[in-house]
Amino acid sequence: MTYVPSFALLEQLRAGNTWALGRLISRAEAGVAEARPALAEVYRHAGSAHVIGLTGVPGSGKSTLVAKLTAALRKRGEKVGIVAIDPSSPYSGGAILGDRIRMTELANDSGVFIRSMATRGATGGMARAALDAVDLLDVAGYHTIILETVGVGQDEVEVAHASDTTVVVSAPGLGDEIQAIKAGVLEIADIHVVSKCDRDDANRTLTDLKQMLTLGTMVGPKRAWAIPVVGVSSYTGEGVDDLLGRIAAHRQATADTELGRERRRRVAEFRLQKTAETLLLERFTTGAQPFSPALADSLSNRASDPYAAARELIARTIRKEYSNDLA
Amino acid sequence: MTYVPSFALLEQLRAGNTWALGRLISRAEAGVAEARPALAEVYRHAGSAHVIGLTGVPGSGKSTLVAKLTAALRKRGEKVGIVAIDPSSPYSGGAILGDRIRMTELANDSGVFIRSMATRGATGGMARAALDAVDLLDVAGYHTIILETVGVGQDEVEVAHASDTTVVVSAPGLGDEIQAIKAGVLEIADIHVVSKCDRDDANRTLTDLKQMLTLGTMVGPKRAWAIPVVGVSSYTGEGVDDLLGRIAAHRQATADTELGRERRRRVAEFRLQKTAETLLLERFTTGAQPFSPALADSLSNRASDPYAAARELIARTIRKEYSNDLA
Repeated sequence: MTYVPSFALLEQLRAGNTWALGRLISRAEAGVAEARPALAEVYRHAGSAHVIGLTGVPGSGKSTLVAKLTAALRKRGEKVGIVAIDPSSPYSGGAILGDRIRMTELANDSGVFIRSMATRGATGGMARAALDAVDLLDVAGYHTIILETVGVGQDEVEVAHASDTTVVVSAPGLGDEIQAIKAGVLEIADIHVVSKCDRDDANRTLTDLKQMLTLGTMVGPKRAWAIPVVGVSSYTGEGVDDLLGRIAAHRQATADTELGRERRRRVAEFRLQKTAETLLLERFTTGAQPFSPALADSLSNRASDPYAAARELIARTIRKEYSNDLA
Repeated sequence: MTYVPSFALLEQLRAGNTWALGRLISRAEAGVAEARPALAEVYRHAGSAHVIGLTGVPGSGKSTLVAKLTAALRKRGEKVGIVAIDPSSPYSGGAILGDRIRMTELANDSGVFIRSMATRGATGGMARAALDAVDLLDVAGYHTIILETVGVGQDEVEVAHASDTTVVVSAPGLGDEIQAIKAGVLEIADIHVVSKCDRDDANRTLTDLKQMLTLGTMVGPKRAWAIPVVGVSSYTGEGVDDLLGRIAAHRQATADTELGRERRRRVAEFRLQKTAETLLLERFTTGAQPFSPALADSLSNRASDPYAAARELIARTIRKEYSNDLA
């Protein structure tokens, strides 16, 4: 099979080819260098879709909610893209399929594109790849893109916040709300959802969240938007339309306001940071290029130390890689 | 409380002060810049201790084995340092205490120093910090240092391999051996241990591992050392002395041989890479320093793209940071 250049795939993607969309997401995920100019162009043309970051601790009912939201958006005629980030499965090296299986009913709908991505290793490349995937879906014409992440781990929480509207899902009971606070998940919410609100103990969680909000935990730039708490039952369908209404209201509140500009600037900074990490680390990853044997030797003889050797390695590599920028 | 300079702590550490040892490990873990020159000096003076990397999938009985090995080494009069790396607990932000609790009997022994470290975030700083901690224990006069990691996740496996002798623990049953192969754990072993060998199904695991080894899965630089498979029962104590004998034999086989030099060069390369990652990423971590507002603005306006902006950010930052090295 011949390698289709990424710009050719991009043209096919714009013509509605979902195979090309999938290929480009895979290249973004793998960090293929050839795909970067195409992804850079994609970024410059993206920004039309509404990106919903949706997160919550495991068991909070995120995936079921995503399915319900997607079904409701489809009824309104919107095309929906879903990027689901699962915790890395060390044994399979791939994403756990649970979320995907729960979404089979949607998977046969040509107006829905679902992509599971694994959280990979320790290079922070997951955030960059997920946001590249969101842009690809945007340029491919999906109106709403749901970026679903597990609300555990700094990167997973941050990437859900790198969206237009962040929805944090809490389930009643089990002290989830306390765990979530500790994980730093609750504080990123533009909208709180209490799932499984058909359950008796849901009211307690609703009250707890509302009280937390009035206690002024959520101050700062968010004050221009009153964070709502929405009860949702994926079982009865209660609250799903209310939630969509709140999401639309948040979109409007951030469309052309200082609140929105500030948010987009923060997302851009996050994106910049994660991309810089990717570009830097790929030069220093085992196997990418052999290090200087002399550096490694002086280190293994303890004639040098890791900090001095690393500075030298960085200066050397960077001088070569970034000589044009540095000139 | 006044801040004690790291070089002052280092002097106290050399005089046998374990409080100073703990403080310096904490500074290495936190990535305190002030501690770096001291840690660099520590590296240059380390290398006397024998470092045992010990890993295995969860439930393989690693921690119990570490306790048994430590007790046996103590009987021989050796001082033992233990660095245990637990999976990051997203809720507490700290290490899970299970391993530490299992070691309480050792914790009261002044010839044993135990330190649990969390695996932090996505910056790869864990490996660097753990190896700095090993050096500190080395310079503090501990004869054997056990670096225990969970054999799940690339970094955790690699750091166990950044040692003088790597011991991989497998438990009988449960298909662990297959899981471990997939995780890339088995291939790093200098010595295989089958734990819980008082159990009926242990023989099967012993045979499987031996067969795998004769099938030539383990070729390459390891050929100069025949990888043994040792059955150990922490319950009956069987095999612990045998294991210590094998570890001593491996130490001798690598002391002043090409096999050992090659290994130390590989460990040095790994160390160099992880330290370079730390030095690079800390410049680009949110909050460390504000990014150029102009860069973030052009990105949020989509007048630029993340790759172009990241290259500019890197070139700019690096030029400032590494101007002496680049001159």
